[in-house]
Amino acid sequence: MKPYKDLTAEELVQEIAQLKAEYKKIQALSLHLDMSRGKPSQDQLNLSMGLMDVLDSTSDLTCEDGTDCRNYGQLTGIKEARELLGDMMENNPKDIVIYGNSSLNVMFDTVSRAWTHGVMGSTPWGKLPEVKFLCPTPGYDRHFKITEYFGIKNIPVPMTPEGPDMDIVERMVREDASIKGIWCVPKYSNPQGYSYSDETVRRFARLEPAATDFRIFWDNAYGMHHLYDHHQDYLIEILAECKRAGNPDLVYKFASTSKITFPGSGIAALATSPNNMEDFLTHLRYQTISHDKVNQLRHVRFFKDIHGMVEHMRKHADIIRPKFEAVEDILERDLGGLEVGTWTKPLGGYFLMFDSLPGCAKDIVARAKKAGVVFTPAGATWPYGQDPNDSNIRIAPTYPSLQELEQAMEIFTLCVRISSAKKILAQKQAQQ
Amino acid sequence: MKPYKDLTAEELVQEIAQLKAEYKKIQALSLHLDMSRGKPSQDQLNLSMGLMDVLDSTSDLTCEDGTDCRNYGQLTGIKEARELLGDMMENNPKDIVIYGNSSLNVMFDTVSRAWTHGVMGSTPWGKLPEVKFLCPTPGYDRHFKITEYFGIKNIPVPMTPEGPDMDIVERMVREDASIKGIWCVPKYSNPQGYSYSDETVRRFARLEPAATDFRIFWDNAYGMHHLYDHHQDYLIEILAECKRAGNPDLVYKFASTSKITFPGSGIAALATSPNNMEDFLTHLRYQTISHDKVNQLRHVRFFKDIHGMVEHMRKHADIIRPKFEAVEDILERDLGGLEVGTWTKPLGGYFLMFDSLPGCAKDIVARAKKAGVVFTPAGATWPYGQDPNDSNIRIAPTYPSLQELEQAMEIFTLCVRISSAKKILAQKQAQQ
Repeated sequence: MKPYKDLTAEELVQEIAQLKAEYKKIQALSLHLDMSRGKPSQDQLNLSMGLMDVLDSTSDLTCEDGTDCRNYGQLTGIKEARELLGDMMENNPKDIVIYGNSSLNVMFDTVSRAWTHGVMGSTPWGKLPEVKFLCPTPGYDRHFKITEYFGIKNIPVPMTPEGPDMDIVERMVREDASIKGIWCVPKYSNPQGYSYSDETVRRFARLEPAATDFRIFWDNAYGMHHLYDHHQDYLIEILAECKRAGNPDLVYKFASTSKITFPGSGIAALATSPNNMEDFLTHLRYQTISHDKVNQLRHVRFFKDIHGMVEHMRKHADIIRPKFEAVEDILERDLGGLEVGTWTKPLGGYFLMFDSLPGCAKDIVARAKKAGVVFTPAGATWPYGQDPNDSNIRIAPTYPSLQELEQAMEIFTLCVRISSAKKILAQKQAQQ
Repeated sequence: MKPYKDLTAEELVQEIAQLKAEYKKIQALSLHLDMSRGKPSQDQLNLSMGLMDVLDSTSDLTCEDGTDCRNYGQLTGIKEARELLGDMMENNPKDIVIYGNSSLNVMFDTVSRAWTHGVMGSTPWGKLPEVKFLCPTPGYDRHFKITEYFGIKNIPVPMTPEGPDMDIVERMVREDASIKGIWCVPKYSNPQGYSYSDETVRRFARLEPAATDFRIFWDNAYGMHHLYDHHQDYLIEILAECKRAGNPDLVYKFASTSKITFPGSGIAALATSPNNMEDFLTHLRYQTISHDKVNQLRHVRFFKDIHGMVEHMRKHADIIRPKFEAVEDILERDLGGLEVGTWTKPLGGYFLMFDSLPGCAKDIVARAKKAGVVFTPAGATWPYGQDPNDSNIRIAPTYPSLQELEQAMEIFTLCVRISSAKKILAQKQAQQ
């Protein structure tokens, strides 16, 4: 198809009329489709129903070391779970703490702790005149909102297919001691599905921050979430790389089984250096007696070992892959050649990113909503919800059924075409 | 037996020699008994093994309102769990939020939130020159440690069998705007097993704190934990009483199933006014997406309703009751008439309190430890671990078996007698 920008004003008017007629027909269907969040579908949840069978009233809920999982104790988590998540996170079990059901909660608490008590003896961030965080953008809205909530100034840093622009990151953290952290989703990033290149990870491990209490918040949420068996991104393990670089305390690494078993009923974990761990535990000792060890044991008995988890993730991939491919096919089929947007083609994770013509994203999302399809609000991928180009839209293909997804994406591309055609027409008319 | 104080120095010397000989024999047994924490015994944990059976891979994990418990969502908890805990806490389900596995964690987070963001729009406590908490004492060490950790000044307030001395509480909160809260275990208090009288609760609901952001931290940890079927303490429900008194926002009420099902694998809850709830949720929305709904559903399906929970608690009582009675019998048998200490006789909860002669508690606990019996450190029931009289010892009878408990208590009374006899002898010698 011909790029929209090469159409005449008359052709654009005609195109818009035709698209709007199609849109009206769809509106009449009164659809309710949700593409807004990265939620697993029911088919995916069904994969983990075996979790409900591994423990019953005849089970021995005792760990190998004799810990009764039913009672209080074991603040850092049971040994078996630290081992399983150690294999999952590629870290030494002794560098891992198992938390409750939400890694977001661990990240929130980590910021909160630094705010009230500092980092390894530093001034509490709440006592400083200004605290800033770097936000590779577009990025994950819930990350940005944590720091926003504490009044931390979120500073966007451009994302590239290799990860954050490291020239900027290196310079900023070196020059500005009020920068205390950076939010990272290093593998199959939210929302692009990018994975940080080897060079990016190496440069992260070699950062020279002016602030001694600067930490990398490394949310490896999609470490196991490949779409393909062989065609996978590989991420250098950051803790090991920091250790090699002589910066062992630079990073907090987070992960969870939320999108492996059940979101909200999984187990979350932190991996970090012994010094950071001691700092975390000082706080944690006052906060709770122990996390849910029965659920830790349940996960260990369900997966048995990392191979079990890998096999399990292949089943997720079999369900998700056709959805990602359908999204890409429809985008290509409906928008290919129109030059009205670009999109990413991830090899894993939960999202892909669409970039519309500047100034169209909000309009596209609003139009889709009026036609019964909810997308993540435009701008959500930017700190404070402010996308200066108004172009970025996150697409979350996992939750709807394949059929619903196809319908939703057809509506999406229709909305993109209407918005883009109107935009280009307005520009042409303004130039006349 | 004759009170030790009425013995002559010679008689005391003889008594001490005899007791020490006994003590030596016990030391030779190399015992390892733990009476330090309020942990349920294995028998009690076995009562809840049915929890592991109520959900299996054929179960429908959908709530009555259609919520899939396996997926994200329902920040305040599933309706069924709010109803069950509503019945348990005697509160309206809509005033309840279900959290994760630890009410201590909810309390910690509540202090942390007030520290960073204030209470319903007040100045964050962390920005104030001084923040104080009232600590009914003897009380629960983990409560005191939370406020200590934030640098809040813990002020002891005397406990009476009716609850905290309300004359002091009323005056202090009225006169001092830097007092922001009070820690309460209102029923079967830790460590005494006292329950607040009707008048105490009414006076709590009618407090007139100088600080608008003053809150009562009402940890009703043992609301269901009676030892007897009919001989029970009754506690006026505080939220309703605050509402009647025109102070609906005065209280945060906490509870959990930790000592009903499995400690660390239960569900915790907050009950509070709609205004406070909104304040909590503002924070919680950034902190997590949702708590473990599968575990909420598991608890609901296990108990079915409040009657199921009451019946379950009777089974706990049948296991615990003989232990409390054994402790009281041994104390009476070995110490009755000696005038070397007093102790409480609770009708529920997890603890009883022993008060030795002034200056003996640390010595008694140390002696017991050397004989292989660990008690909660003397002083732990006081803010900063400082018991000015050095007399208070918490006794936690639930965890050991009845046989171990009897052995431990015999060692305890032996240590009390040695310490007391030595103390009185020293006094007599000093007077000569």
